[in-house]
Amino acid sequence: MNLKQIAKDTAKTLQHYMTYQAIKTVLIQLSQTNPPQWLWLNNFSADKIQDGEALIEELFHEKPELALRIILVRENIVEGVAEFLPEMIITGIQQSNMGHRRQHLERITQLNLSNPSQKTGQQANLDDADSSSD
Amino acid sequence: MNLKQIAKDTAKTLQHYMTYQAIKTVLIQLSQTNPPQWLWLNNFSADKIQDGEALIEELFHEKPELALRIILVRENIVEGVAEFLPEMIITGIQQSNMGHRRQHLERITQLNLSNPSQKTGQQANLDDADSSSD
Repeated sequence: MNLKQIAKDTAKTLQHYMTYQAIKTVLIQLSQTNPPQWLWLNNFSADKIQDGEALIEELFHEKPELALRIILVRENIVEGVAEFLPEMIITGIQQSNMGHRRQHLERITQLNLSNPSQKTGQQANLDDADSSSD
Repeated sequence: MNLKQIAKDTAKTLQHYMTYQAIKTVLIQLSQTNPPQWLWLNNFSADKIQDGEALIEELFHEKPELALRIILVRENIVEGVAEFLPEMIITGIQQSNMGHRRQHLERITQLNLSNPSQKTGQQANLDDADSSSD
C-alpha cells in the first residue's frame, strides 16, 4: 500500500473539489447580485466542472475578474475547513466501519438463531444456511 | 459562504474517495495473490464505484470477507494520510493560485508592452488591445 502516493492523489482530488465548491459559492452570490453574470458563468462552467484548474485557466482568458474571485474564494474555503478535515474523515470512516461490522454480526447471529434445529438436531449445512439468509 | 456545510460535504466526498482507494488497493493485492477473486471484485465494483457505502453494504451480502478487508484497508489509509492533508491542500491551492495570478500579470504586462505606439502615439483603444492579445 503506497500511502505517499494515495496522500498525493487525495490532495489533488480535494483541490478539484475545493474549486468546485468555490465556483458553486460564487454562483450563489452572483444569482443574488448579478443574474446575467450568473447565467454566463453557469453556462461556462457546466461542462468544465471536472477539471477545476483547466476551468480557471480558461476563465482567466474570458473573464479575469471572475477567475480572480473564484481563486480567492477557494483559498478562503481551504483555509477555513482544512484543519477540521482529518478528525471529520477519521471519525466518519471509523463510525461507518463500526456500523457495517455491527450489521454483519447481527446477520450472522440471526442466521444462527433462525436455524436452531440444524445446529442441535442434525448436521448443520452451512451452505444452505447461507443461502436461506438472503 | 457556509463553511460548516462545505466542511461536511468535503468530508463525505473524501470518505467516498478513501473507499475508492481502498478498493483499488485490495484489487492490486488480489491481482497478485488471487486472480479469480480479483476478476470477481473488478466486475462487481465496476459500476458501483461512485457510491462507496452502497458498494460495501452490498459486498457484505455477497462476499463478507472481502468487505471486511476493504473497510480495514480504508481505515488504515485514512489513519495514514489524514494528518498530512490540511498542509498539502492549503499549500497546493496557494501555489496554484499564485501561478494563475503570475500568468495573468504576465499577460497584462505583455499586452501593454506589445502596444507601445497605441499608448504614446495615439489614444489607446483598450478593446482592440484586448482582442489582439488572444
